[in-house]
Amino acid sequence: MLSSSTHSTTVEAFKGLIKKIKHYNEAVSLMFWDLRTGAPKKGVEQRTEVIGTLSGETFALTTSKEMKEYLDLLSSPDHYTQLDEITKKMVKEAKKEYDLFIKIPPERHKEYVILTSKSESVWEEAKAKSDFSLFQPYLEKVVDFQKEFIGYLGYEGHPYNTLLDQYEPGVTVEQLDQLFAGLREKIVPLVREVTSSPHKPDIRIVTQKFDPQKQKAFSKIILERIGYDFEAGRLDDTVHPFCIGLNPGDVRVTNRYNHNDLREGIFGAIHEGGHALYEQNISRELIGTNLCNGASMGIHESQSRFFENMIGRSRAFWECYLQDLIEVFPEELQGVTVDQFYFAVNEAKASLIRTEADELTYNLHIMIRYELEKGLISGEIKVADLPHIWNEKMREYLGITPNNDAEGVLQDVHWSGGSFGYFPSYSLGNLYAAQLEHAMRKEIPNYEDFIRNGQFAKIKDWMTEKVHKYGKLLTPNEILVQATGEQLNARYLTDYLEKKYRQLYQI
Amino acid sequence: MLSSSTHSTTVEAFKGLIKKIKHYNEAVSLMFWDLRTGAPKKGVEQRTEVIGTLSGETFALTTSKEMKEYLDLLSSPDHYTQLDEITKKMVKEAKKEYDLFIKIPPERHKEYVILTSKSESVWEEAKAKSDFSLFQPYLEKVVDFQKEFIGYLGYEGHPYNTLLDQYEPGVTVEQLDQLFAGLREKIVPLVREVTSSPHKPDIRIVTQKFDPQKQKAFSKIILERIGYDFEAGRLDDTVHPFCIGLNPGDVRVTNRYNHNDLREGIFGAIHEGGHALYEQNISRELIGTNLCNGASMGIHESQSRFFENMIGRSRAFWECYLQDLIEVFPEELQGVTVDQFYFAVNEAKASLIRTEADELTYNLHIMIRYELEKGLISGEIKVADLPHIWNEKMREYLGITPNNDAEGVLQDVHWSGGSFGYFPSYSLGNLYAAQLEHAMRKEIPNYEDFIRNGQFAKIKDWMTEKVHKYGKLLTPNEILVQATGEQLNARYLTDYLEKKYRQLYQI
Repeated sequence: MLSSSTHSTTVEAFKGLIKKIKHYNEAVSLMFWDLRTGAPKKGVEQRTEVIGTLSGETFALTTSKEMKEYLDLLSSPDHYTQLDEITKKMVKEAKKEYDLFIKIPPERHKEYVILTSKSESVWEEAKAKSDFSLFQPYLEKVVDFQKEFIGYLGYEGHPYNTLLDQYEPGVTVEQLDQLFAGLREKIVPLVREVTSSPHKPDIRIVTQKFDPQKQKAFSKIILERIGYDFEAGRLDDTVHPFCIGLNPGDVRVTNRYNHNDLREGIFGAIHEGGHALYEQNISRELIGTNLCNGASMGIHESQSRFFENMIGRSRAFWECYLQDLIEVFPEELQGVTVDQFYFAVNEAKASLIRTEADELTYNLHIMIRYELEKGLISGEIKVADLPHIWNEKMREYLGITPNNDAEGVLQDVHWSGGSFGYFPSYSLGNLYAAQLEHAMRKEIPNYEDFIRNGQFAKIKDWMTEKVHKYGKLLTPNEILVQATGEQLNARYLTDYLEKKYRQLYQI
Repeated sequence: MLSSSTHSTTVEAFKGLIKKIKHYNEAVSLMFWDLRTGAPKKGVEQRTEVIGTLSGETFALTTSKEMKEYLDLLSSPDHYTQLDEITKKMVKEAKKEYDLFIKIPPERHKEYVILTSKSESVWEEAKAKSDFSLFQPYLEKVVDFQKEFIGYLGYEGHPYNTLLDQYEPGVTVEQLDQLFAGLREKIVPLVREVTSSPHKPDIRIVTQKFDPQKQKAFSKIILERIGYDFEAGRLDDTVHPFCIGLNPGDVRVTNRYNHNDLREGIFGAIHEGGHALYEQNISRELIGTNLCNGASMGIHESQSRFFENMIGRSRAFWECYLQDLIEVFPEELQGVTVDQFYFAVNEAKASLIRTEADELTYNLHIMIRYELEKGLISGEIKVADLPHIWNEKMREYLGITPNNDAEGVLQDVHWSGGSFGYFPSYSLGNLYAAQLEHAMRKEIPNYEDFIRNGQFAKIKDWMTEKVHKYGKLLTPNEILVQATGEQLNARYLTDYLEKKYRQLYQI
């Protein structure tokens, strides 16, 4: 018979350990933010060591004897059935992480870390020289490590599922194949139609010289309007924009401003703002637990994409804010109409670089990476064949061919650091976003009027109620099904894109 | 017989543990800096918990069994004689801290922490209401705790020595009594003469409206000129200026700018810059050890005071920079001469508030606090009598009387938090600074010409060679004697002040 005091002591000790790990993570996150927003360069080397020490400690705690003891005890039926929902999920999460860390032999993990660190710098050089052959031997080793790790961790169905699961728990190759097929079928022909439409946006409107300070001031206003709480965050300048949630009361956004293109700064801010709204609105009762983060990379991306594209790039949004923007840039934007501006910020065209791709073509870039990763892991594709297959797929899906590997297979940093299984999250984000938007439209009558009037509270609150507040308490699929009443379905995204781009390009 | 491998293993393990503690401290320092320079307020509560966790861990490591084991082993003659100078000093420092932490019963320390936290907020209220009786019972308990702690820690000579030693290792009541007597004898009559001199500065020059942004820009230039390395630091805005050394490659300065008084911002920047030069120039070989800080509070203050007063408030300095300042504020400062400006930034007068006191009268404020603290700890003074004695001493030394306790005995936060023994460091800083300056003048021919020409490298390098580079490797007294050839002597400060203020006030 289990004594209740043993039980509650164990629960408290387990929660205390988890909280300690979270506290270490928060300190590391602040150092990370600081390094990217203005830490003096001569202190960086030492700071990196400090991060190493704290991360090492986090790893040690996550895989400690105490952790194993608590997890074994609390996973046993006697204990488990007594736990509340939050604690049950905390145990599951901690167990998953424990298993992940403990199954890989430490010496192999160490070799892998050394390899990827080297591999990243080789990739940088290879990209600069546009010479895939430099990178190839490293990438081969990185891929071999992925396969080796999958061996330790085990898999069901396709071995790539194990990698997917690290970013998007529960998502499988089977499901992705079907989703991407749905996208491909609709989007590939749609891109062709858009490309051949004689009706084009006038992007000179948004590609003039725009004072970055004014762009920043406008971005700040927009962030506030969509509900970003500046008492629980701040906006700083950086080279690569990001959002970092230290805790729900401190979620920081960083952004950059292109002097010659208005789109980058404004939509960068709204994108990161979407991530930030998620983190700021996680339920306070999850603070200090291992559930106080987004449910997955994909759900996180659904929030940034929803706010960036479905809100920020909607016509209704600019009906509301174009006048304000014109007041900030009266000379540059004098006489620009909502229709002109709306079209200019939604220009769609086949392009080579993923990070610069528009809403319509973006998922095709992801699809290519997904198909290549899957083939690499299953062994059907060899690293040496990547440049060739990459270019082939670019022609097939987007109708264009890179001039060299720097603007082809070498463009992304992800593979050099071993981030296999990550890319699909970007498309899942778009898919989730469209399905959530569809559900929201049904539940919020006159949805577009709220955007048109700059009243985002209702929209944000809906997202908080359906997505944000749960943190990691529910799985991505549970969140989606609970919010929308059905499994993930590519139709919502394709319908949305069809409608938007057919109207814009008059096709 | 001691095996050399046991020895080196123990040394490595000890150094590793010290480094780990330093790394935790660095993370905590960054969080501290962040809290004071723009952390969003809704995240503060959680951040405080994170700081608590990391500080607790630091305490646990500092007093851990491993630490005791290493210290016992390495302090034994067999090991100790084999250690290099740095490691010997590391062992001494760690042992001192271990003893300090371990001798106080944890439950008493905890009660004390709770008391001081409460006491600080009561002090705030008492000061706001100018009602000492509110604060009195708390201060009595705080003083009782000090006495109790001294009981645990032991003392030689006067019990107050134990408190002094925490801020200024090796300094005693006997020495301070003599130093303050030397100051009192010269400065009290000098203040009277200054006060009755008909020759006064025109401080309207520096008390106009000055754009804070321009003040900041000028402060930045001055910081750069005196040798502050912006690649190893940054300047941010804050409510209470401070300098924080995370590591020698990352030493941050914060400052504030009074819209109606030019002095606060400029001299605040130079003061914190002096602290920063110290931390930026500690020898790189001390990074990661427990010696990579200033030698003491007093030596640290000697650097800030030297740069603020002896450089920044010198005539030669303004011969160099007044023209630049006039270019920043052409309307406000048009036609101001070096003599006028030099006099205006060196106004001396008896005043009530320590933090606003000038270079001449400042030490009298400290002397009052020193005498009161000493009396409280020895039992010769009762807390209840403080307001009365305070006012009496103000009349005796400065010739003025506070109108109420808010501008008298309640003005400083220090006692409410239990910082007894800290105040003397401010005066020691002034004393060290004057003695160092005297030595420097002898060793650098045409010392003032270097200031006059804005060439500070020679001056900074002298300080680095004599003070900065050692960190905590030498004691305050060792640094002073090695740099100046003699024990601390109040004459250098009194001579300096006599010369400067007799000339300024024509007395």
